[in-house]
Amino acid sequence: MDDDGRLISYERRNDPVRVMALSDGVFAVVITLLVLELHVPDLASEQSLSEAMREIWPSFVALFISFIVVAIAWAEHRDLFALIRRTDPPLVWLNILYLLPLSIIPFGASLLTRYGTDPEALGIYGILLVGSAATRLGIWVYATGRPYLLFKPVDVRARRAGVVIAAVAGLAYAAAIAIARFAPMASLAIYAAGPALYFTAILVARTSAPPGSEVQGFT
Amino acid sequence: MDDDGRLISYERRNDPVRVMALSDGVFAVVITLLVLELHVPDLASEQSLSEAMREIWPSFVALFISFIVVAIAWAEHRDLFALIRRTDPPLVWLNILYLLPLSIIPFGASLLTRYGTDPEALGIYGILLVGSAATRLGIWVYATGRPYLLFKPVDVRARRAGVVIAAVAGLAYAAAIAIARFAPMASLAIYAAGPALYFTAILVARTSAPPGSEVQGFT
Amino acid sequence: MDDDGRLISYERRNDPVRVMALSDGVFAVVITLLVLELHVPDLASEQSLSEAMREIWPSFVALFISFIVVAIAWAEHRDLFALIRRTDPPLVWLNILYLLPLSIIPFGASLLTRYGTDPEALGIYGILLVGSAATRLGIWVYATGRPYLLFKPVDVRARRAGVVIAAVAGLAYAAAIAIARFAPMASLAIYAAGPALYFTAILVARTSAPPGSEVQGFT
Amino acid sequence: MDDDGRLISYERRNDPVRVMALSDGVFAVVITLLVLELHVPDLASEQSLSEAMREIWPSFVALFISFIVVAIAWAEHRDLFALIRRTDPPLVWLNILYLLPLSIIPFGASLLTRYGTDPEALGIYGILLVGSAATRLGIWVYATGRPYLLFKPVDVRARRAGVVIAAVAGLAYAAAIAIARFAPMASLAIYAAGPALYFTAILVARTSAPPGSEVQGFT
Repeated sequence: MDDDGRLISYERRNDPVRVMALSDGVFAVVITLLVLELHVPDLASEQSLSEAMREIWPSFVALFISFIVVAIAWAEHRDLFALIRRTDPPLVWLNILYLLPLSIIPFGASLLTRYGTDPEALGIYGILLVGSAATRLGIWVYATGRPYLLFKPVDVRARRAGVVIAAVAGLAYAAAIAIARFAPMASLAIYAAGPALYFTAILVARTSAPPGSEVQGFT
Repeated sequence: MDDDGRLISYERRNDPVRVMALSDGVFAVVITLLVLELHVPDLASEQSLSEAMREIWPSFVALFISFIVVAIAWAEHRDLFALIRRTDPPLVWLNILYLLPLSIIPFGASLLTRYGTDPEALGIYGILLVGSAATRLGIWVYATGRPYLLFKPVDVRARRAGVVIAAVAGLAYAAAIAIARFAPMASLAIYAAGPALYFTAILVARTSAPPGSEVQGFT
Repeated sequence: MDDDGRLISYERRNDPVRVMALSDGVFAVVITLLVLELHVPDLASEQSLSEAMREIWPSFVALFISFIVVAIAWAEHRDLFALIRRTDPPLVWLNILYLLPLSIIPFGASLLTRYGTDPEALGIYGILLVGSAATRLGIWVYATGRPYLLFKPVDVRARRAGVVIAAVAGLAYAAAIAIARFAPMASLAIYAAGPALYFTAILVARTSAPPGSEVQGFT
Repeated sequence: MDDDGRLISYERRNDPVRVMALSDGVFAVVITLLVLELHVPDLASEQSLSEAMREIWPSFVALFISFIVVAIAWAEHRDLFALIRRTDPPLVWLNILYLLPLSIIPFGASLLTRYGTDPEALGIYGILLVGSAATRLGIWVYATGRPYLLFKPVDVRARRAGVVIAAVAGLAYAAAIAIARFAPMASLAIYAAGPALYFTAILVARTSAPPGSEVQGFT
């Protein structure tokens, strides 16, 4: 086999298209499974449905936060893979690891709904979010540091911005776990505020980036 | 980096293909999750299965209406994205918001099945439909008003038709919520008639549109 | 807008790619939801797990038959859409209708498992299969009779073969419904034998077709 | 119809793209359904949530192992289909068979979680893994032995490596079934160690392969 044939064959084996297809499938299912954590309430005697619905409103809050968390993870995945031209085995497996905590988010949301401010429930939800930030950091550092995986090298500023955003998210969620036992409401507030902080961080990064930096492409 | 490279890089980051992949995944899962709201009945003593099935037939009606509602939302999404050449961050997030009420439809259908004409159940189902119409309106107005997102500018007639259809649907469903307390059966009838009205509206819009208008492309 | 632009725009609006994406998503979810109808048994006192598993083996049979039924529906969908170059609104909606009975198959399988030879359970499962055959017939007749939807006209022999296979399947399942009350075991046997008959029919059609007929492409 | 037209038509009917789309959908749903086997615990009186979570940790282990098993099956599927240029009906149906045991893995994981070291539960989980290895072996042998299905012929070394890996996995899992009655913990250990052995085998195969062998492309 000549060099050309070897290259084509290499490209085909390392095409990221199926990695994205699997990931989009997992994101779509996770986002929609969240709704399975909403349970149609059984009415106690003399209870009206609107009273029963008021009792389960924390489910809606947990659903909404988790929906946005998963949507952000998808948007970050899309931003990253917009840079990636080919995969290699470690990238494929880092991607699988990235999907693991996300796929458990519906369980975490359900636990949080049921046991609200119990430190254990807050802790498990937090571990999933820290896991998601850590695997995001891993795949970002791995991929952006290997120009042969990319359409073109990522500028230093964009690379650092990606690291900082994932690391800060991870640290914030780790702090939420640490304080869960002493200040459960503060811990919950961190989970609730996470997406808002993320959108602010992206906005700041995007508007302060020089033209042409890949930071401009952050969603 | 030269201008060409910047453009290619911009196009890649803003390719709508993964937005469509995620959305198709969510639509597919939502449509199929509806069936999870059908429960195999437990038979009371002396009850035949055919009696039990007659008792749960409202589930089938709720399933069918919700199936068509989600299918229409998908068809509208497909019509819109047939016009879209590239995304930008607000479009991506408007699309995520569009998916939110749709992903809760299976819960709404289940509530409606269980608590039939309770105004609370009617109201929640209605909020999901209004939310779907409102987010549809938002994404339509945003995208069709930004020619740089589109393959070619959308003609005024098509743009207005899209606005009218979403707004009328939203208003009809809002009326259904408003009357749920006083006339639950009328409210239910609006939900049931919604899809039929939609098909009529599309047909009228399509047959009355001049050749070449994007209205011709409405499904 | 000139004619060329109008044509490109028409092609884009009527691209079948998202119809296939939605359908593949629905098929994938339906096939996998079947497993949710398998329930981990609770053991009665003194009962071993292997006794309990023997009791639920009809679930596995219903799962397997339904799995093959859905897989065949997917293979037929793929064969049809391999011919289709562009869609039009009726084709899109016929496709949605095609997905409706299929998405209810997991409920039918669950009913059949639970109420085995009850004519009502047999009847509902049969209605889903007849519905699937009828919508398959509808979409096949519609699409293959409209050359502007196709890459190239379908030969008469292939068109007729598609009609015959769908019609025979529909009639066989209708017969199974008709006899469910008097001969439930025979009715069940028809459902079980359906896939085998389908594979035989396809094999016969394929081997007897002249070279170049689209029948050669049936999976 | 001329020869060219016939060839184009043949290619279109046998395009593997939808086989991959269905498969990716099934993999994504299976991976995410695993989380449905995690149940939010009900607390016994005087029991804390962290005690309850400690009791359900075997669920997490079963989830993690099954997650990796399904991910490996996906990676192997991707490696195989990176070689495949066109399908034929047997390949399509072998692929469907390959998806069958995988789609039942969530049930197997649930059974294993609930009935831990019961030989019946271990046996059923083992049958799913053996079935997955056997169908993998079948599709690999079928496809790599038919050059007209491939982009280019697979070298003998790669073909044999694929056979050996699937066969060894199948035999190891068959051994786990055989010893389940006498040494349930050893059986469980084989299931737990399976993925680690797989990664080692792939690594050895990849590093010992001459440049240019398709073995280099194993993920």
